[in-house]
Amino acid sequence: MAISWEDSVTNSINTVYLLFSAYLVFVMQLGFAMLCAGSVRAKNAMNILLTNVVDAAVGSISYYLFGFAFAFGSGLDSNPFIGSHFFALKEIPNDTYDYSFFLYQWAFAIAVAGITSGSIAERTQFSAYLVFSFFLTGFVYPIVAHWVWSSTGWLSPSSSQLLFGSGAIDFAGSGVVHLVGGIAGFWGALIEGPRVGRFDAFGQPVPIRGHSATLVVLGTFLLWFGWFGFNPGSFNKILVPYMNTANQGNWTSIGRTAVTTTLAGSTAGIVTLFGRRLIIGHWDALDVCNGVLGGFVAITSGCSVVEPWAAIVCGFFAAWVLIGLNILALKLKFDDPLEATQLHGGCGAWGLIFTGLFAKKEFIVQAYDAGVIGVVRPFGLLMGGGWGLIGAQVVAVLVIIGWVTITMGPLFFALCKLKILRISVEEEMAGLDISSHGGYAYVAHPEENHPRFYADYVRMQDGS
Amino acid sequence: MAISWEDSVTNSINTVYLLFSAYLVFVMQLGFAMLCAGSVRAKNAMNILLTNVVDAAVGSISYYLFGFAFAFGSGLDSNPFIGSHFFALKEIPNDTYDYSFFLYQWAFAIAVAGITSGSIAERTQFSAYLVFSFFLTGFVYPIVAHWVWSSTGWLSPSSSQLLFGSGAIDFAGSGVVHLVGGIAGFWGALIEGPRVGRFDAFGQPVPIRGHSATLVVLGTFLLWFGWFGFNPGSFNKILVPYMNTANQGNWTSIGRTAVTTTLAGSTAGIVTLFGRRLIIGHWDALDVCNGVLGGFVAITSGCSVVEPWAAIVCGFFAAWVLIGLNILALKLKFDDPLEATQLHGGCGAWGLIFTGLFAKKEFIVQAYDAGVIGVVRPFGLLMGGGWGLIGAQVVAVLVIIGWVTITMGPLFFALCKLKILRISVEEEMAGLDISSHGGYAYVAHPEENHPRFYADYVRMQDGS
Amino acid sequence: MAISWEDSVTNSINTVYLLFSAYLVFVMQLGFAMLCAGSVRAKNAMNILLTNVVDAAVGSISYYLFGFAFAFGSGLDSNPFIGSHFFALKEIPNDTYDYSFFLYQWAFAIAVAGITSGSIAERTQFSAYLVFSFFLTGFVYPIVAHWVWSSTGWLSPSSSQLLFGSGAIDFAGSGVVHLVGGIAGFWGALIEGPRVGRFDAFGQPVPIRGHSATLVVLGTFLLWFGWFGFNPGSFNKILVPYMNTANQGNWTSIGRTAVTTTLAGSTAGIVTLFGRRLIIGHWDALDVCNGVLGGFVAITSGCSVVEPWAAIVCGFFAAWVLIGLNILALKLKFDDPLEATQLHGGCGAWGLIFTGLFAKKEFIVQAYDAGVIGVVRPFGLLMGGGWGLIGAQVVAVLVIIGWVTITMGPLFFALCKLKILRISVEEEMAGLDISSHGGYAYVAHPEENHPRFYADYVRMQDGS
Repeated sequence: MAISWEDSVTNSINTVYLLFSAYLVFVMQLGFAMLCAGSVRAKNAMNILLTNVVDAAVGSISYYLFGFAFAFGSGLDSNPFIGSHFFALKEIPNDTYDYSFFLYQWAFAIAVAGITSGSIAERTQFSAYLVFSFFLTGFVYPIVAHWVWSSTGWLSPSSSQLLFGSGAIDFAGSGVVHLVGGIAGFWGALIEGPRVGRFDAFGQPVPIRGHSATLVVLGTFLLWFGWFGFNPGSFNKILVPYMNTANQGNWTSIGRTAVTTTLAGSTAGIVTLFGRRLIIGHWDALDVCNGVLGGFVAITSGCSVVEPWAAIVCGFFAAWVLIGLNILALKLKFDDPLEATQLHGGCGAWGLIFTGLFAKKEFIVQAYDAGVIGVVRPFGLLMGGGWGLIGAQVVAVLVIIGWVTITMGPLFFALCKLKILRISVEEEMAGLDISSHGGYAYVAHPEENHPRFYADYVRMQDGS
Repeated sequence: MAISWEDSVTNSINTVYLLFSAYLVFVMQLGFAMLCAGSVRAKNAMNILLTNVVDAAVGSISYYLFGFAFAFGSGLDSNPFIGSHFFALKEIPNDTYDYSFFLYQWAFAIAVAGITSGSIAERTQFSAYLVFSFFLTGFVYPIVAHWVWSSTGWLSPSSSQLLFGSGAIDFAGSGVVHLVGGIAGFWGALIEGPRVGRFDAFGQPVPIRGHSATLVVLGTFLLWFGWFGFNPGSFNKILVPYMNTANQGNWTSIGRTAVTTTLAGSTAGIVTLFGRRLIIGHWDALDVCNGVLGGFVAITSGCSVVEPWAAIVCGFFAAWVLIGLNILALKLKFDDPLEATQLHGGCGAWGLIFTGLFAKKEFIVQAYDAGVIGVVRPFGLLMGGGWGLIGAQVVAVLVIIGWVTITMGPLFFALCKLKILRISVEEEMAGLDISSHGGYAYVAHPEENHPRFYADYVRMQDGS
Repeated sequence: MAISWEDSVTNSINTVYLLFSAYLVFVMQLGFAMLCAGSVRAKNAMNILLTNVVDAAVGSISYYLFGFAFAFGSGLDSNPFIGSHFFALKEIPNDTYDYSFFLYQWAFAIAVAGITSGSIAERTQFSAYLVFSFFLTGFVYPIVAHWVWSSTGWLSPSSSQLLFGSGAIDFAGSGVVHLVGGIAGFWGALIEGPRVGRFDAFGQPVPIRGHSATLVVLGTFLLWFGWFGFNPGSFNKILVPYMNTANQGNWTSIGRTAVTTTLAGSTAGIVTLFGRRLIIGHWDALDVCNGVLGGFVAITSGCSVVEPWAAIVCGFFAAWVLIGLNILALKLKFDDPLEATQLHGGCGAWGLIFTGLFAKKEFIVQAYDAGVIGVVRPFGLLMGGGWGLIGAQVVAVLVIIGWVTITMGPLFFALCKLKILRISVEEEMAGLDISSHGGYAYVAHPEENHPRFYADYVRMQDGS
């Protein structure tokens, strides 16, 4: 009855791969925390740090109790809209899912609320944050994940009934994760309105700089590190040999996915560096960080199914999507302190479209069918693959925007009407940390009258 | 004579697993450094950063020379109290231990002194720190590790003579690591006494806030990341199929261990968030961080042998243990700047007891006997497993407290009497950084008279 | 035609190992960013953070387009000086190299410019930085990598024509990475000259302290973490059994390499702690950090081929090399803000020599010939291995210094003559962040008049 040697080896290798990828994705939560903290004013740093810790903690419980079930709980009675098995990890492990898969998906789920928290930073009541975070992580996001990633989802490229004969390819979640988080943030930021002082009496934007560029760069690099778990890790299994080529398997595609991810982010970073240099006249580190992240967000959908050169194309346009949307946001007096709507929403949507244009036939069959010979699938429009895939990608963009809008829009609106969404102007001026969290993130201890040198101290003592 | 294909594969997979787990455990040292630095005043930041770096460096040498030998040096002449082989890695590698196992255990050893350094922060002479760190990492801790984790230890659940037919289950070290570090910290903090100004003339506590909440959150997330190496990594080998179940092996238990760890920490964080909200009236980020860590400390003992739902129970009570002990510490005028005694000591002890109550029969046989059919072991009292395990757990708690007390207590007492333990009041007021380390951790360079804008600078130049 | 089970397993395990090692090496870029930022004044923090992000981004593109080809592009027409295949990943994957190998090497390439950026910190024009970074990462470094690490390089220990019958052993790059980066930094720092105010009117050095010891320690620990990918990861494959010993393979050497790395860094840190204590009279955290890093740099060459006790010898002398060169640099009025010349250059050169003295015969045959029985190679001079290896090591030191000098020296000299290398004195006084990057890294928002307590704020409102 015991398991075979081959199965033991396969399970061991794949579990090592999936668990360590999950750990990397978890690091992104720390990355978001540092990026967000550095991008807000010091008086709100503790607040946003707390929201990121609470995301992870609350997300663990809600995703354990029902989020995972909604997303991946397929069974004989399963439907294409929502899962209904595995609540509180019942029947886990089974032949399809082990604990390691749950952990990997948990790390994705907590990232979504982290994205949205950036959009509504510096002006949101903490209790409202608890409500939307619980709802987004436990319900809104898992439904989309079910559509695209579960084998019974109506948008899934692995389903038995493929939309347009193709299904949508959102390999690691430009749409499922980033577009969801970005659109949720859009409604939050729109309904709350801009921060006090963000636009002056004449409607002109007034820059509100974050308090620490060091934290922004720390967060960016940690997110880059974590993205190596997010994108290549989405293969879940590494020990999958391909039928249609000698000597290749998931290990080849996984390496290529790490490369496409790196190239897209790097290209977007460089384009942003020079693009913003032309526009604003100096070399801005924070722009580059956001550019790099925009490139990552965009490649996340197609990372496994495009050539490295296409990843450079992806990053190039991702940078201009971000630059353009940021200019538009200023014009519209839309205030998203982390640019999360523009970055995760805009570049996420672009990523889905990009995949529909550049996905390569051979790579799709490898990533989704282990390279089985004879499989025919639509692929990138510009690669000669017809309208099936790009059609499914456009549907995915529209449907995700629609779904998040009809769920998160009313939620933020209701919280606003109940006056439990935004803090008062006085609290906003004083900062969330002192009004809601008992004190500032940084304490200078001036009361202790630091002498600059110890000798000074002794002299002071003598003089008294 | 060369090794077989199967053995090569097994060794490769297990070494990848163990080494990367060791690297994660090492990250905890960075986590402690950031957590500690953020929790103390800026004037002592450099001191505590240095102690954490020195822990790692000194611990490497002492653990290489004799610590590992004391802990795991079993042979034909071995005894249940202390090991006596493998000094300076002599006879390593052998059939039982490879270098990767040493590295993994080294990362554990350096964590212990890191815990204790928090308890005595902001008032301890650096040379005293060197002495206790060397003694704790090189002698006190390895002895306990030998008792519980080596195959010849008298408390070990893998020994040929099981205490109460069971042995104590301290899978990743709620007792061996955290209780040891916490009790050592207790004696240090008690003998040193509170920091100047921690209690006023009327004995009322005066809050001394750490200088950076950002660093505290950074440290907490890094510790969370590292704990994925600490707990699941303690299986050491992943390629171990189970006899008593189809299709499962250590890879299953390892995934579940990562899940129980996550759920316990998350639950404790949430309970602390709301519990402290009720008590102090605001949402405190630092409390949540400590709550999360308390949950991790508690689950560390039983992480591999309990169901996920039990991990939630574990975290729930860990939060109240921490909250309760913190209130008690204030009443008793006990000052531990990092709450290390309460957190690592209190939640560590609770973790050992929890395992005695909730450990599941099947999981124990899997974790300790590879699921061999027919093995009978005591298991959790509340799961119907009798008094054998809980008895061994209680003995473990008492014996660890006793051992650390009779070793570290006299050491701190002697250092105190020799007047080389605590710094002078003047030095404490000025801060350790300026008195012992040549300057502050942060330099504002005010002497350079930063102009806010470059234009101002030019104007200043012109005017002069 | 599909791949065999054994090959699938081997490829999967080795790819997991190599990719996660690459991710760790990438973390070193973050480590450098934090170390550099903490070591400079706050007014230049944004600049050095940006250079580290840009290193990674620009390095990705240049290494993808031609750097990798120059380094590893060997073919039938290959030559010992420079590679000429695989531009833009053409013909990748092939039987020799997969994408994962490219990613691993990319992470090394971007580290080199990171080292050099420290030497010229706080006074270099950003556009000059872009030029030298592109040239160093894309051309100067890959050539050296080709010599030492490609199978057709003239210094390679794996070539068919071994220099002195031995080839140079620079396992993970004390020379290829650190000496290259350090010597490039030397010429940059020398040609730029010291920072304004570094030496007073009498030529006496004036300490310019970095603005954050916390960032320095954060960077140091992250570099330590990343070095576990740098050194043990340089085996590339873990599933390689040895012929000349029972039960051992690359997994054994990989574990030992992690141990030698740890011991060398730890020893160097401790020696620096006490050595500097004797010289300057206090316990300096920053010295210890640099000491630890110096130990790592030195062991990087021989990490895989020396015994753990020899690693302690390596670290001991590395500390004195660093201490000595720092004293010499002060005497010569040479200003390298990060000590990168002394640390990466000095300790890197010592590391190459050390390997020539202490490399063990058996370990060399294992690391470079999979322990094939009967292989004869020169080994460490002090181990009785003759002059072949130490001779090749000395040649490697001299040739690397020469090559970097004749390429980077003229480049920096030309940039200097064109007046695009160094910023003006006014800009240097004001700081690079405000003059080139649009603002400081840290914003205190004093204009908002933070009230210390919210109650104060309300009172202010009432009074107005």
